[in-house]
Amino acid sequence: MQRYFVKNEQITEKTIKILAEDAHHISRVMRMKPGERIICCSEDGQTALCEIQEITDDLCFVSIVEWIDEDKELPIFVTIAQGLPKGDKLELIIQKGTEMGASCFLPFFASRSVVKWDEKKGRKKVERFEKIAKEAAEQSHRTRVPVIKDPIDFKKLLLDSVNYTYKIVAYEEDAKRGEKRNLSSILQKVAPGDSLLAVIGPEGGLTEEEISKLCDNGFITCSLGQRILRTETAPLYILAAVSYHTELLG
Amino acid sequence: MQRYFVKNEQITEKTIKILAEDAHHISRVMRMKPGERIICCSEDGQTALCEIQEITDDLCFVSIVEWIDEDKELPIFVTIAQGLPKGDKLELIIQKGTEMGASCFLPFFASRSVVKWDEKKGRKKVERFEKIAKEAAEQSHRTRVPVIKDPIDFKKLLLDSVNYTYKIVAYEEDAKRGEKRNLSSILQKVAPGDSLLAVIGPEGGLTEEEISKLCDNGFITCSLGQRILRTETAPLYILAAVSYHTELLG
Repeated sequence: MQRYFVKNEQITEKTIKILAEDAHHISRVMRMKPGERIICCSEDGQTALCEIQEITDDLCFVSIVEWIDEDKELPIFVTIAQGLPKGDKLELIIQKGTEMGASCFLPFFASRSVVKWDEKKGRKKVERFEKIAKEAAEQSHRTRVPVIKDPIDFKKLLLDSVNYTYKIVAYEEDAKRGEKRNLSSILQKVAPGDSLLAVIGPEGGLTEEEISKLCDNGFITCSLGQRILRTETAPLYILAAVSYHTELLG
Repeated sequence: MQRYFVKNEQITEKTIKILAEDAHHISRVMRMKPGERIICCSEDGQTALCEIQEITDDLCFVSIVEWIDEDKELPIFVTIAQGLPKGDKLELIIQKGTEMGASCFLPFFASRSVVKWDEKKGRKKVERFEKIAKEAAEQSHRTRVPVIKDPIDFKKLLLDSVNYTYKIVAYEEDAKRGEKRNLSSILQKVAPGDSLLAVIGPEGGLTEEEISKLCDNGFITCSLGQRILRTETAPLYILAAVSYHTELLG
């Protein structure tokens, strides 16, 4: 069933008002009629089965049939702290990472990030990322849209990292040395509601200095299998491993 | 260290002859000189540390310093049987799937595949896929380049499936129903050298009829976590789960 994310202010006790692009999507793209049903997800991850009552091109009123109990989110909160990569790789990471269950994307300026970030254009970019995340969350039947943060510098990343239960950094030297246990030993310890901050370097990786500062701040380095993954592949590996370990492993 | 895949016929007892694009890459892109070292991988996955002896724009002779024992491949052979997707998604699947360790990519015409496949242009496409796989294998430090097959029809897929130790199919209805154990119960059984055939539907998924025929032929349906993944995301999840379970899980 088609699914839409709505702000809490759009929800009353018995109805939900759907606006602008989403209303247009329901009326023009999906060509739905009164009586047909959709799913609405609130900002705090509540899910309602709804029935369309009235619909115009840019406004749609639905009645709440029932609140349903859905379990679509990873049991732990995963934040992908991504060293700013080139080109449109961050879009790929956000789209695929949202499908795979990430809670938050936190881009940061790494020593080897070569991309320029213009304050004004940057705001537009983040808005575009938010749209990609919302669409991917709808498509993958999630109940929450991941948060996209504005890029921060490395110092701020270290400061913010105190807020997480577990902190890892993907490190290709670990893969080369054959380190194999760090990721799984953390995933064996995590409990529902814990938070995991996963740092991934940009193209060219993190510098020795960055790795050593992360380790000084409680990060564990880990390999992601025996091969060297591109910067945009590493976060997807981590999210799949978290899902596999916490959702599927008996 | 830079790595190149060579055919067995390019290798003699003590030297390797590197040709065409690879030689050009060494001389012009990497600007390497005699005395510098590279890694060469043979067709059967043997790895040699080599030293450049002579180099021109399209030919490079290297001497074999030593054969080294590298363990970069997944312990099981994973074939990704992908329902032909739209646009350039197959390129993404092949590039990322190669980094994550796939042995073979086997595209097939699913009922809901909408893409047209022209015999002549198709051959060129497969050649392009082979190039993408070779470059991704070099970049990710693998010792083998995955095999790219020409697309086959669904009947042929069923016939070919008898050659694999385990056969799974990603099934989104399983995700919706909350099935959680099938993938991990198979990965708990696999032994080094086993082969796994993983079938993934195109956009829109596989039909009920296709799923039922696969099950009649010994395939196990499985969910990939609690969310619905796009066709190009599912194979990456499966490969990451295989790597995590067989390489990292203690």
